[in-house]
Amino acid sequence: MAAGVGVIGAGTVGGGVIRILLSNASEISTRSSVDVSLVHVADKDLRQLDGLDLPGVTVSEDATALIEDPSVDVVCELIGGIDPARKFILAALGAKKHVVTANKMLLACHGPELCRAAIANNVELRYEAAVAGGIPIIKALREGLSGNRIRFVCGILNGTCNYILSRMTYEGLEFGNVLEQAIESGFAETPPDLDIEGHDTAHKCQIIASLCFCTEVDLDDIYVEGVTKVTHADVAYAREMGYLIKLLAIVRDRDGEIEARVHPALVPEDHLLASVRNEFNAVYVKSDAADATLYYGRGAGRLPTASAVVADIVDIARRGDASPPPPFLYGDRRTVRPIGSLEGRYYLRLTTLDRPGVLGKVCTILGGHGVSIASCIQKEEDDEGLPVHVVLMTHETLESSLRDALEEIDRLEFIREATHVLRVL
Amino acid sequence: MAAGVGVIGAGTVGGGVIRILLSNASEISTRSSVDVSLVHVADKDLRQLDGLDLPGVTVSEDATALIEDPSVDVVCELIGGIDPARKFILAALGAKKHVVTANKMLLACHGPELCRAAIANNVELRYEAAVAGGIPIIKALREGLSGNRIRFVCGILNGTCNYILSRMTYEGLEFGNVLEQAIESGFAETPPDLDIEGHDTAHKCQIIASLCFCTEVDLDDIYVEGVTKVTHADVAYAREMGYLIKLLAIVRDRDGEIEARVHPALVPEDHLLASVRNEFNAVYVKSDAADATLYYGRGAGRLPTASAVVADIVDIARRGDASPPPPFLYGDRRTVRPIGSLEGRYYLRLTTLDRPGVLGKVCTILGGHGVSIASCIQKEEDDEGLPVHVVLMTHETLESSLRDALEEIDRLEFIREATHVLRVL
Repeated sequence: MAAGVGVIGAGTVGGGVIRILLSNASEISTRSSVDVSLVHVADKDLRQLDGLDLPGVTVSEDATALIEDPSVDVVCELIGGIDPARKFILAALGAKKHVVTANKMLLACHGPELCRAAIANNVELRYEAAVAGGIPIIKALREGLSGNRIRFVCGILNGTCNYILSRMTYEGLEFGNVLEQAIESGFAETPPDLDIEGHDTAHKCQIIASLCFCTEVDLDDIYVEGVTKVTHADVAYAREMGYLIKLLAIVRDRDGEIEARVHPALVPEDHLLASVRNEFNAVYVKSDAADATLYYGRGAGRLPTASAVVADIVDIARRGDASPPPPFLYGDRRTVRPIGSLEGRYYLRLTTLDRPGVLGKVCTILGGHGVSIASCIQKEEDDEGLPVHVVLMTHETLESSLRDALEEIDRLEFIREATHVLRVL
Repeated sequence: MAAGVGVIGAGTVGGGVIRILLSNASEISTRSSVDVSLVHVADKDLRQLDGLDLPGVTVSEDATALIEDPSVDVVCELIGGIDPARKFILAALGAKKHVVTANKMLLACHGPELCRAAIANNVELRYEAAVAGGIPIIKALREGLSGNRIRFVCGILNGTCNYILSRMTYEGLEFGNVLEQAIESGFAETPPDLDIEGHDTAHKCQIIASLCFCTEVDLDDIYVEGVTKVTHADVAYAREMGYLIKLLAIVRDRDGEIEARVHPALVPEDHLLASVRNEFNAVYVKSDAADATLYYGRGAGRLPTASAVVADIVDIARRGDASPPPPFLYGDRRTVRPIGSLEGRYYLRLTTLDRPGVLGKVCTILGGHGVSIASCIQKEEDDEGLPVHVVLMTHETLESSLRDALEEIDRLEFIREATHVLRVL
């Protein structure tokens, strides 16, 4: 079996795909019994191809020419963003070309439209690279666990956030300092908002939820909270209580309804996800037959992401003329539960004046809303008169009850800042 | 697409497959767009099916009748062992039925024969369940990483050994005691030799090596050392130096030749494999594009193993009439390097009389063979005259040089026991 590959976008990921297709062609042919060959590259800026030896490959500035090139069987969309990526993918599907994309934002915003176009044209639309880079997690969820009802997925899906939180944890740095260094060294994007505000993780969360529960999920229904409010003090208190703070995407089956949310959370230090450091990603899955499985690797970067794109190309080539699987499998729409209905344990960091009776008043209000305290940290403050931190860990409680209690607490005269709340995994 | 499934062997794994096919049929149909239905079960002991409601399923004591049943498209061989499993699989392939098996021993001993039979009959032979139970590692290596040259795979692949080593590590128990308890509670097989002597892990190591390097590998060429000689003292010294002891299967690309070996090893405590506790399995992979990836989950047990079998069945059903991939992809045969040619770091536990000059003599001999010492532990002994342990960690060295040195050392008059050697990951 053989496939001609066209790559739209010769930037970081596209350049990686080109490199793998050129250097590993014989390995792919031996290990997978298919011949995949790069036949066409299109990019607005062809200077990116300088220095690459591309014999027999058509190079153009025109994505439409690539899509219409009859030697192209598989179109890789690797330019990212909504437009013109969406236009190119729809054109390729319309031209009966299989499509491979790494574009999580586009999938999260226009998944159903792209899915319908692929089905209508009887071609594949694959997106392994859209979630967790080099980790074959889409394949694991769709194929590896195909016999399972998936109950719960919890992932560290943004390398930049995990890198920042890791440095805060292991080097005692503040969020702003690490972010600044990450931007300076080109490690974080400018502006970094898509990463640090949690939206990039939300895109991946949406894709995972759609896939696991066969339902359309509106991006707006996913609760999203980034890492910008996590302080070094939070990281230190969490460690003292035996937890690490990670930005998580969580989806869960809730008897017909589902949870889909993105926020920083306290992860017990003996949980495997707590060992996932720096820019690495990992996805923890609970399903009814396989039980717990975990998948770990590089969630970004030129070659890891390209590895996922090439795996999709090879899968398409290997399928030959067989009927392709639908890209997403939408069944009945399932309701995403609002974050207020979440039940869990919570970490609260109060900033308060050090007055007698503070803890009593706070706990009385919490108790009045049915929230009980599991543990507490309060350090003696050297500088009298300055506000102090009181850190409380709750027992299992309903989030809306906690929020009601905190609204009262944050109005108390000795409370100096809005109480910082973190969920516990 | 649809497939009729026949299950030979209704024991632990077969019973799990039957249960998943009955309970998750609609989930499989929704998520994978295929209908897989159990149509035939064969077992010598049909009492195992008592209490199961199997409407429309043929039940027989005769595997041959199952293989010849025209409603069976996929034959699952789940009886284990070499014979009659081999005979049944060859008969099924000869009858143009796809085969799914969990039989690692059979694959390790007769892989090429089974592979040739599948190719000759243009049917699939799949074996996801043969390695690491519920973890979709075969799929990850074959498909998820299809664009990669795989450089190195290191796996914890035997739940019984990992459980024993974990209890030795975290509860300070001796090997024999944990093994006894594991057998009593039915957790370890009787006799436990296949597990604790490393042979079960070697079967899986052989399958992984064949798959990663597209080569036939003789089981006899794989160096195998079990966990029976690991003492609680070793576990404790290792921890003191920042390591945990795990039974590992290791395969590595060595410029044309390969390494394939099974032995206990010291794993640095910050390596993800060190966090894999109790009966869990994990496989760490290094490849040229995706870089490091890790796959974790339950390596045994009824439902996790059945989950892998069902994934294979669904993959076969989804492929429809498309040409099947060859089960193994044998290219040029690659030489397995002898263990003596290994280069690495080593842990040495010497049992010696506490005499002046012991360490000097030992180090002189080691140095004479080019082995240099990185660190050393020697505890003061309360009971004078009793032998003491001296623990040495070497720098990188050639295993054959170390063995030559140890032959001399173990002949020294103050050495009371053969020096215990463990490799370091």
